Amino acid sequence: MKEYIEKAYVLIEALPYFNQFNGKTFVIKYGGSIMTDEKLKKNLFEDISLLKLVGINPVIVHGGGPAINEMLKKLQVKSKFVNGLRVTDQETMEVVEMVLGASINKEIVAMINQLRGKAVGICGKDGGLIKATKKRFPDNDIDLGFVGEVVSIDPTIVENLIANDYIPVIAPIGCDDEGNTYNINADTVAGKLAIALKAEKLIYLTDVDGIRLNPEDENSRASVLSFSEIKDLIEKGKIQGGMLPKVESCIEAVSQGVVRTHILSGLLPHPLLLEIFTDQGIGTMIVND
Amino acid sequence: MKEYIEKAYVLIEALPYFNQFNGKTFVIKYGGSIMTDEKLKKNLFEDISLLKLVGINPVIVHGGGPAINEMLKKLQVKSKFVNGLRVTDQETMEVVEMVLGASINKEIVAMINQLRGKAVGICGKDGGLIKATKKRFPDNDIDLGFVGEVVSIDPTIVENLIANDYIPVIAPIGCDDEGNTYNINADTVAGKLAIALKAEKLIYLTDVDGIRLNPEDENSRASVLSFSEIKDLIEKGKIQGGMLPKVESCIEAVSQGVVRTHILSGLLPHPLLLEIFTDQGIGTMIVND
Amino acid sequence: MKEYIEKAYVLIEALPYFNQFNGKTFVIKYGGSIMTDEKLKKNLFEDISLLKLVGINPVIVHGGGPAINEMLKKLQVKSKFVNGLRVTDQETMEVVEMVLGASINKEIVAMINQLRGKAVGICGKDGGLIKATKKRFPDNDIDLGFVGEVVSIDPTIVENLIANDYIPVIAPIGCDDEGNTYNINADTVAGKLAIALKAEKLIYLTDVDGIRLNPEDENSRASVLSFSEIKDLIEKGKIQGGMLPKVESCIEAVSQGVVRTHILSGLLPHPLLLEIFTDQGIGTMIVND
Amino acid sequence: MKEYIEKAYVLIEALPYFNQFNGKTFVIKYGGSIMTDEKLKKNLFEDISLLKLVGINPVIVHGGGPAINEMLKKLQVKSKFVNGLRVTDQETMEVVEMVLGASINKEIVAMINQLRGKAVGICGKDGGLIKATKKRFPDNDIDLGFVGEVVSIDPTIVENLIANDYIPVIAPIGCDDEGNTYNINADTVAGKLAIALKAEKLIYLTDVDGIRLNPEDENSRASVLSFSEIKDLIEKGKIQGGMLPKVESCIEAVSQGVVRTHILSGLLPHPLLLEIFTDQGIGTMIVND
Amino acid sequence: MKEYIEKAYVLIEALPYFNQFNGKTFVIKYGGSIMTDEKLKKNLFEDISLLKLVGINPVIVHGGGPAINEMLKKLQVKSKFVNGLRVTDQETMEVVEMVLGASINKEIVAMINQLRGKAVGICGKDGGLIKATKKRFPDNDIDLGFVGEVVSIDPTIVENLIANDYIPVIAPIGCDDEGNTYNINADTVAGKLAIALKAEKLIYLTDVDGIRLNPEDENSRASVLSFSEIKDLIEKGKIQGGMLPKVESCIEAVSQGVVRTHILSGLLPHPLLLEIFTDQGIGTMIVND
Amino acid sequence: MKEYIEKAYVLIEALPYFNQFNGKTFVIKYGGSIMTDEKLKKNLFEDISLLKLVGINPVIVHGGGPAINEMLKKLQVKSKFVNGLRVTDQETMEVVEMVLGASINKEIVAMINQLRGKAVGICGKDGGLIKATKKRFPDNDIDLGFVGEVVSIDPTIVENLIANDYIPVIAPIGCDDEGNTYNINADTVAGKLAIALKAEKLIYLTDVDGIRLNPEDENSRASVLSFSEIKDLIEKGKIQGGMLPKVESCIEAVSQGVVRTHILSGLLPHPLLLEIFTDQGIGTMIVND
Repeated sequence: MKEYIEKAYVLIEALPYFNQFNGKTFVIKYGGSIMTDEKLKKNLFEDISLLKLVGINPVIVHGGGPAINEMLKKLQVKSKFVNGLRVTDQETMEVVEMVLGASINKEIVAMINQLRGKAVGICGKDGGLIKATKKRFPDNDIDLGFVGEVVSIDPTIVENLIANDYIPVIAPIGCDDEGNTYNINADTVAGKLAIALKAEKLIYLTDVDGIRLNPEDENSRASVLSFSEIKDLIEKGKIQGGMLPKVESCIEAVSQGVVRTHILSGLLPHPLLLEIFTDQGIGTMIVND
Repeated sequence: MKEYIEKAYVLIEALPYFNQFNGKTFVIKYGGSIMTDEKLKKNLFEDISLLKLVGINPVIVHGGGPAINEMLKKLQVKSKFVNGLRVTDQETMEVVEMVLGASINKEIVAMINQLRGKAVGICGKDGGLIKATKKRFPDNDIDLGFVGEVVSIDPTIVENLIANDYIPVIAPIGCDDEGNTYNINADTVAGKLAIALKAEKLIYLTDVDGIRLNPEDENSRASVLSFSEIKDLIEKGKIQGGMLPKVESCIEAVSQGVVRTHILSGLLPHPLLLEIFTDQGIGTMIVND
Repeated sequence: MKEYIEKAYVLIEALPYFNQFNGKTFVIKYGGSIMTDEKLKKNLFEDISLLKLVGINPVIVHGGGPAINEMLKKLQVKSKFVNGLRVTDQETMEVVEMVLGASINKEIVAMINQLRGKAVGICGKDGGLIKATKKRFPDNDIDLGFVGEVVSIDPTIVENLIANDYIPVIAPIGCDDEGNTYNINADTVAGKLAIALKAEKLIYLTDVDGIRLNPEDENSRASVLSFSEIKDLIEKGKIQGGMLPKVESCIEAVSQGVVRTHILSGLLPHPLLLEIFTDQGIGTMIVND
Repeated sequence: MKEYIEKAYVLIEALPYFNQFNGKTFVIKYGGSIMTDEKLKKNLFEDISLLKLVGINPVIVHGGGPAINEMLKKLQVKSKFVNGLRVTDQETMEVVEMVLGASINKEIVAMINQLRGKAVGICGKDGGLIKATKKRFPDNDIDLGFVGEVVSIDPTIVENLIANDYIPVIAPIGCDDEGNTYNINADTVAGKLAIALKAEKLIYLTDVDGIRLNPEDENSRASVLSFSEIKDLIEKGKIQGGMLPKVESCIEAVSQGVVRTHILSGLLPHPLLLEIFTDQGIGTMIVND
Repeated sequence: MKEYIEKAYVLIEALPYFNQFNGKTFVIKYGGSIMTDEKLKKNLFEDISLLKLVGINPVIVHGGGPAINEMLKKLQVKSKFVNGLRVTDQETMEVVEMVLGASINKEIVAMINQLRGKAVGICGKDGGLIKATKKRFPDNDIDLGFVGEVVSIDPTIVENLIANDYIPVIAPIGCDDEGNTYNINADTVAGKLAIALKAEKLIYLTDVDGIRLNPEDENSRASVLSFSEIKDLIEKGKIQGGMLPKVESCIEAVSQGVVRTHILSGLLPHPLLLEIFTDQGIGTMIVND
Repeated sequence: MKEYIEKAYVLIEALPYFNQFNGKTFVIKYGGSIMTDEKLKKNLFEDISLLKLVGINPVIVHGGGPAINEMLKKLQVKSKFVNGLRVTDQETMEVVEMVLGASINKEIVAMINQLRGKAVGICGKDGGLIKATKKRFPDNDIDLGFVGEVVSIDPTIVENLIANDYIPVIAPIGCDDEGNTYNINADTVAGKLAIALKAEKLIYLTDVDGIRLNPEDENSRASVLSFSEIKDLIEKGKIQGGMLPKVESCIEAVSQGVVRTHILSGLLPHPLLLEIFTDQGIGTMIVND
């Protein structure tokens, strides 16, 4: 009987979210260690298929992970460096496009389709999704080759895929009007896309369980952070490294209409379900003041 | 962490049912002791409002319970009896109509509306829903007055209310072409209506927790019973009294296209949610062989 | 031949009204002596069915008439009085709801359905139609119990019934957010509903043939009265009693968009047809200045 | 009061016809003496505009009347005769087309438009409405020039005009695949068009008040005639002259799905209204056995 | 091979125009010598049918040409003259209507229909297309009878015909509210209609190959003229006679939203195709500055 | 003038094809030498963009060409051989997928998008387009690894892209239910896809100008070949090598509803335009007997 009552409470807690999120779009950035853990990947795609089943529209943006470096090594492409930063020359870019646009992208598509979802993999060139340009580094005027930044997003192709009930899977590659191809930071693409799609949620699945108020202290995770709190943490240097572009994308997204943004650990079991259908969630949510 | 995993499993179990039942109609017969227990009533209508919220179309058929007898007593209407069965004469029928069609029906409507549902209460006269006639008792040719049986159901008004997102609440009263009003068994009305609506489910909320293989043995509840098993139990006399019309309506409903029929205890907490969104359920399900 | 010509002229007079009123909503308040005259009732419902047949959307609001007092008497409910006004206590309210919401309401529904119309009877609780509150009597601060006034009308359920080609029949009962039930003046409900429905016409079927300029003089009926004329009559005390709330509802309705309001005698043969399809009409029409 | 009751009865009689004929198509052949009587013409077009107003779709087919002969005379076109029948040679045909297709057709259009109807005048060439061929006279093999008969009707243009709420006015002229123009009997065109349009009614407005059982006896008009009765009258030679093609078109039309066909006097006041909206009618109705 | 390449270039030149003009309306005024040359007429209607085939909506406005005078002569109608201008009296107007509204109009309809187009011929009376009035000559106050000017255009009937995939063929006749018929300059009708239809193009097919900068010099045709250039030519008296109303209609049309206006020679082979689907065109195009 | 007339004739010839092919789907297999000639590629994609512009729905299926071998060489993947046929082992398959699915596919997409088309590149995994299995070689039972054949086509994703006005670009890769990836012959994919899409045309752009009756004789190209003629040529061994799967796909496609199939030289200028919009065409068309 007690088990029944507990089940009933989980359901009563979850049911209103179903209604609230029905027909809404969630942009999910997926990267980091999950990409190389078969079990976590399978769990994740199962959860994403379940979301689709109950009327939520997940959109996946993926990064490249270690696969790019492996392929560069196999092809014996030697990287040049400027100020310690690796340059993406033409040859490197071709490898990046092959790995992101085919190896990783189509693997995700095939895994979701095996789980009875219907995924379609595209990159930023398809349907003119991402117009990019060479990224400028204003501080020190260096040229890192085909490292790009987003000029504009035309979300039509993604909206069409959603309307036709597909799960779009997007490789973070764009091109400019001259036909040059650029490799773009996947976190940034996810943020800009969430804005262009007027998404309900932007979710970063990472290797950490949210934002810690004290980076050293495991138990200092914040459940919810407002803009002013987040800015304070940034100023104090407590948010660094790979977390910084995620947090900045969250701030930008919320400022421009995305209702809620989340940073979660992809290493927990079923993080998306727990974050979406329970009142407390399991990561850090960044919201407007 | 363990709590999280358990929550996740409840969700993973429940999610496919959401999709499966989205847009489907459930006819729920509600009667017996729940009708006089304020807390159970409130829980029930909360659950029904949640079902509506997640895209299921509940239709409520209610009985009269002790309120009819109370009112007859107050009005000092003396019942006549034939062969030990009470006769529903004109005066009694007027009382039955007032209690079922207004007192009980509008109380349910008001309670659901307070819970943010949108209920509309009607009886079988409205929109020509139930065409009835005097019930014949073929075995012993007696006349019980305005005790009726269903001649035909025109479910249009119920379908219209569903299409406009209302929860229909139905009093089991019908009339014939001459304008005579009849009191009809609510279990039968629920069964016929489920068939006419091509409902996904027909659910009887009763005072017992399903069908027992051995009426004496509390632990002998059957989770699922096939037609042949049910018929065997009836022949052996193990299904009797108020349970009999429910079981017969279940058999008729399943034979005519209602996918699943259930007999549950309305005295458990949240019986509808547990029956609908868990794999095991909590009552007895009667299905085709 | 002369007969033909006269018929032709009736048709030529009537035809433009058909076109003008096609798809328009008429709110018809029905009460008084017609309620107890079987022949007048039948004629009235035949005319209402004809109106529906030719594309007009009639909405019926009914009062209670003598039936409420009869039932109170049967149940030996003793009325309390404050300042000479009867108090509607809880017990009285329950009787009012049963009589209005079931006995009278469903009788009208059944009669119209026998005439091949399709009626659906509801009260102000259904679909949240009428939000009510305890009526305040500002002049002398008395408490008459569950005598209510309209807080707001949500006409959606009535519009849905019209859109599905039903004739809505409405009992003037509402409830507040705490679930208290109130008895409301049917004339007022008809007027507020006509406004909320943006009705073309609001028609009061009464026991008199319109408004007399001189109450003593049978032949002083006014065909048309403007606002200023009506206000003058009120100030001079020539409109009194039950006529007053009707006239005030007419004034309010016309001020808020109802095109024409009428006060007719329901005791004439086919008063609705004659009022609607002839140039002269048979009662008093109240219009804007 | 008596006048009121009579008015009410006319309305009660007429109302069901409004519903029955709403959205239905009536093909009205108009010819004979009405064409030269300004008052009758105006009355007729007023009635047709009223029909349109109340949701009936009138389609007018007109003949030529005396205007053709007048124009032939003015132009000093001498007619040739074969076996006593006038030959429509090329020159005559050009005159016929000008008079039917412009003078008469556009006069009707302009009169209806002045009465706030919306008429559009076309001939059988427009939109490929009437495919015609030279009429063969099987009995005596004579050539009467451009006297045509209907090969096929493509009612699309008429249906389009109806769908756009116009009153189509049709001149009985057709052409063949070589571009030859033919003058066709207007009664026949009306009949064939009624069939092609699946019209509810085919109405001939003539100079007589229907079919007489005894041509000599003014009072022998038949209200309704069945196929067998009509055939009997034809065989006995009691239907002759201009009435014959009308009757034959009626028979053909009813056999092929036109519900009712009428032959009326256009000289009575408002014949269409009386025929359509009263139970008795004023002419002869020909129906299936 | 060279032939192939040339074909390919014509196609590459033409293809974008197909897309650009798909679903657009072209008003084509057709008059002058083409009207009496059977071969040119056939070519023209073939081209118009092709335009319709590829998704352009041609609308034809025709003049009367010599046929009117021939018929006046045949009928021995003597024209009166005022200040040297012919008066269109009632009798003349009747002839004009017959010739324009039937002889010419229906001949065009029949020719297009033989070429598998679907044409419908109407005049300005049909569907209330052209409301006209007696033309005023402000300079010298003379009365030329039923010479009309356009008061207003209701393009609904033409839009309906286009929407139903017909090619409208329009005779330049209108009437006023009193039912008087007027003959209106066809060039003016074409211009006003192009404006009312929000046409993409207004094309005048004439006997000359456009506007010459020097009327004497055959080779001085201008391909494109702006408003200021055209006005300059008018002021210098270099545009005269029948060309003047065409040019003025072009100016008015372009000022009011018609995108491009053209004056072409109808004597060239396939002038419409060459003007529409080639970059250079063959006549004079008048555009906004 | 002569030039004008020639232009007009090209247009008159081309116009009916526009109408005929509007909204129709053409599957275009593109491979061979064009893939490495920048000018030919650009011309081809310009023509494809023009086709889209005028309402035709082109679908591109591409092969891999020399790029796959180049990448295998760079990665120093050594091919194994069985019976002289190269084995596609796991490592080779990964390279094939990267080159087909990203390098070539996205280059085509980017080029079309630069020409203002809207292309979207997918492979057979996306949306479950191609279900494949290991190809069996029945004659000699060898295992060539991940060389696949088509089990079934679900064209929904391609139809969705067409409906949203994209040009689908398809890499001939499929997977089975276990998630194995296969490289499939692009000619076969094009043929099966044309059938599944109920395409109007299937066009192979090759390095030769069609099918020669005598392979040695340049001037022996057949314009049209029927099934019996083609089968005769195959039996006589006159169709061999890479031409054979194309011809077999054409035969299968025509048998299953594709209206026309073509084998053209992609080395001619604008081969698609000339084949589609001229009566004669430039390659070999294979049609049903």
